[in-house]
Amino acid sequence: MPTTEARSATLELACELIRRPSVTPDDLGCQALMIERLEAIGFHVERLPFGDVENFWATRGHHGPVLAFAGHTDVVPSGPHVHWATPPFEPSIDADGMLRGRGAADMKGSLAAMITAVERFVAVHPDHHGRIAFLITSDEEGPAVDGTRAVVEHLRERHERLDYCIVGEPSSTAWLGDMIKNGRRGSLGGVLHIKGVQGHVAYPHLARNPIHQAMPALDALVREHWDSGNDFFPATSFQVSNFRAGTGATNVIPGDVEVVFNFRFSTEVTHDELRARTEAILDAHGLEYHLDWTLNGEPFLTAEGELVEATVAGVEQVVGKTPELSTSGGTSDGRFIATLGSQVVELGPLNATIHQVNERVRASDLDTLSQVYEAILGHLFVNGSARP
Amino acid sequence: MPTTEARSATLELACELIRRPSVTPDDLGCQALMIERLEAIGFHVERLPFGDVENFWATRGHHGPVLAFAGHTDVVPSGPHVHWATPPFEPSIDADGMLRGRGAADMKGSLAAMITAVERFVAVHPDHHGRIAFLITSDEEGPAVDGTRAVVEHLRERHERLDYCIVGEPSSTAWLGDMIKNGRRGSLGGVLHIKGVQGHVAYPHLARNPIHQAMPALDALVREHWDSGNDFFPATSFQVSNFRAGTGATNVIPGDVEVVFNFRFSTEVTHDELRARTEAILDAHGLEYHLDWTLNGEPFLTAEGELVEATVAGVEQVVGKTPELSTSGGTSDGRFIATLGSQVVELGPLNATIHQVNERVRASDLDTLSQVYEAILGHLFVNGSARP
Repeated sequence: MPTTEARSATLELACELIRRPSVTPDDLGCQALMIERLEAIGFHVERLPFGDVENFWATRGHHGPVLAFAGHTDVVPSGPHVHWATPPFEPSIDADGMLRGRGAADMKGSLAAMITAVERFVAVHPDHHGRIAFLITSDEEGPAVDGTRAVVEHLRERHERLDYCIVGEPSSTAWLGDMIKNGRRGSLGGVLHIKGVQGHVAYPHLARNPIHQAMPALDALVREHWDSGNDFFPATSFQVSNFRAGTGATNVIPGDVEVVFNFRFSTEVTHDELRARTEAILDAHGLEYHLDWTLNGEPFLTAEGELVEATVAGVEQVVGKTPELSTSGGTSDGRFIATLGSQVVELGPLNATIHQVNERVRASDLDTLSQVYEAILGHLFVNGSARP
Repeated sequence: MPTTEARSATLELACELIRRPSVTPDDLGCQALMIERLEAIGFHVERLPFGDVENFWATRGHHGPVLAFAGHTDVVPSGPHVHWATPPFEPSIDADGMLRGRGAADMKGSLAAMITAVERFVAVHPDHHGRIAFLITSDEEGPAVDGTRAVVEHLRERHERLDYCIVGEPSSTAWLGDMIKNGRRGSLGGVLHIKGVQGHVAYPHLARNPIHQAMPALDALVREHWDSGNDFFPATSFQVSNFRAGTGATNVIPGDVEVVFNFRFSTEVTHDELRARTEAILDAHGLEYHLDWTLNGEPFLTAEGELVEATVAGVEQVVGKTPELSTSGGTSDGRFIATLGSQVVELGPLNATIHQVNERVRASDLDTLSQVYEAILGHLFVNGSARP
């Protein structure tokens, strides 16, 4: 059970962070607040701004494996305040014990839980094994170019060690800790322009209708069996999100089509293979096309190891139930961190209300989360599961 | 060869009509000019305005079959005048003998040719057999609801006889009279809304992508063999003109799709059959959809008969070459008139520049056209090919 003192400190810090309307990519002093707390307990902090984005990297300890807590201080916009039961940047706790405010779940609650977990841990273990780190950005909800990605590149150039990383994304679904994300699918986007020949619908023999040409080719892409997934990932999925063609006139065959599609892919296929196979299918249908690709993220997976063991054990110890491992859902900054060869998991509060009006999280869950984070530190750096 | 007097009168009237900028549905006095000329030679004229649209019906003679000249005084907009070599509503004849101005080809030149043809004919044959009529509207280029369609309904209610109709649409392609349109395909439009379930591309199992559902169904419609056409019509054609789906976001599966399509259909299939077969194909693909149909025009055909014979003979007599019969191209007001059971042909000047800047027609072609119209009158009402 969380102590009264822990509950108070975590909730208080979460509220202080929510009061700062740090709509992406603004930080508005959230990081200063975190840095002040970390420096007070012996962390060495480096501010690492890139472009308009504020980031920091903080470490405590000098030897052994590195466990980083990773997260973001920026939040998505609140939308019109009138749609909220209480102002989105004035945190409140209702009669049911729910903390409401933009960022309560995604992810200022997690940030507060990380800070208080580390505060309690180092108070008891001032000379802990290993090194504890924080990798914090103010651009996860936006373009995510000058945020974690840039910090990771900076760390790579410095040959910084990063063995374990806990990302505070809201991973839970029904009860705190029920789901730990131990990987994410890759995301590959395509914008396809198919060229036809414009004309009048009364003279189709003088035109070449690119909508007609697109349909069997796209249908083949939809029906393609890209892979079967594996124990950790569902099968790779292809989805068309946008299809635009036509002049608006009912009697004109359009000259081109724009199709936007997206792959969410497993570790059974590479993005290069997906590109090649897509283009082969389009070529086989005789299309005249131009295709722009965007690799949003490679898939990553922490199938097993000390971090997964410690995280599962931490949840079991504090909550008394066993969490599920999952790679479902969208992308997160974990995709960038995993490229350093780190073991990465995501663990945070319930995600039911994220990005919605009246975003909220059970206040006591933040205390529980802080206890879980502290227990993970104990398993890795006190009980000695971490590799030296 | 056309006489000097005829050439002068036809050209002069065409220029007077072009000077009136009667952009659809405005008439701006064009019909008054025609009515004045027709009343002067003994026509009985009825103005038949519907809504904002001016129309008139004029007849001469009391017995026997009715031949109507049909046409429209409205023109399509000129676009910016600066794009024209000369102002669009100031008719001019260039060094090559081309009459330039909006409506020169479509179809004020034809209207002038009809009037002068009838003037010459009744001067020689004041007691001609049969009845000569004019069915003139100022809304063919616009919605075409209160124009010829409304007049035809009015005539139908009065049980007016309309045996033969010559529509002055610019049917010629290389030389005046080379092509006579003796029918038109039908036009049936559809607006199809396919309903899916919106969702995130990362969770496709929670969504139902209507783009994915649309593709095999539309592909089946494209591949369907609707009919084989016949001696007069090409095979029925299905074309998708517009396809709209997607929120603009790359990570959202849209909730619906809008597809606009059009049939150009032969006399081998009815619009009811096309609707039923389309819906059967959509149903077979398990789509949840809503489909709005618009019948723009039934197909019509004047396969043979006195009017086609007289028209072919008229061209041969005046031009010295044999015209081709065709049902190609878009729709015309002939689709409405044909519903009265009339034989309908379309014969007018070269259509190369219609609806374009610098619309123009060879000035001498209008004189020739007037001679052809006069010759047709002679074949029907003097040489006695018309049924009594």
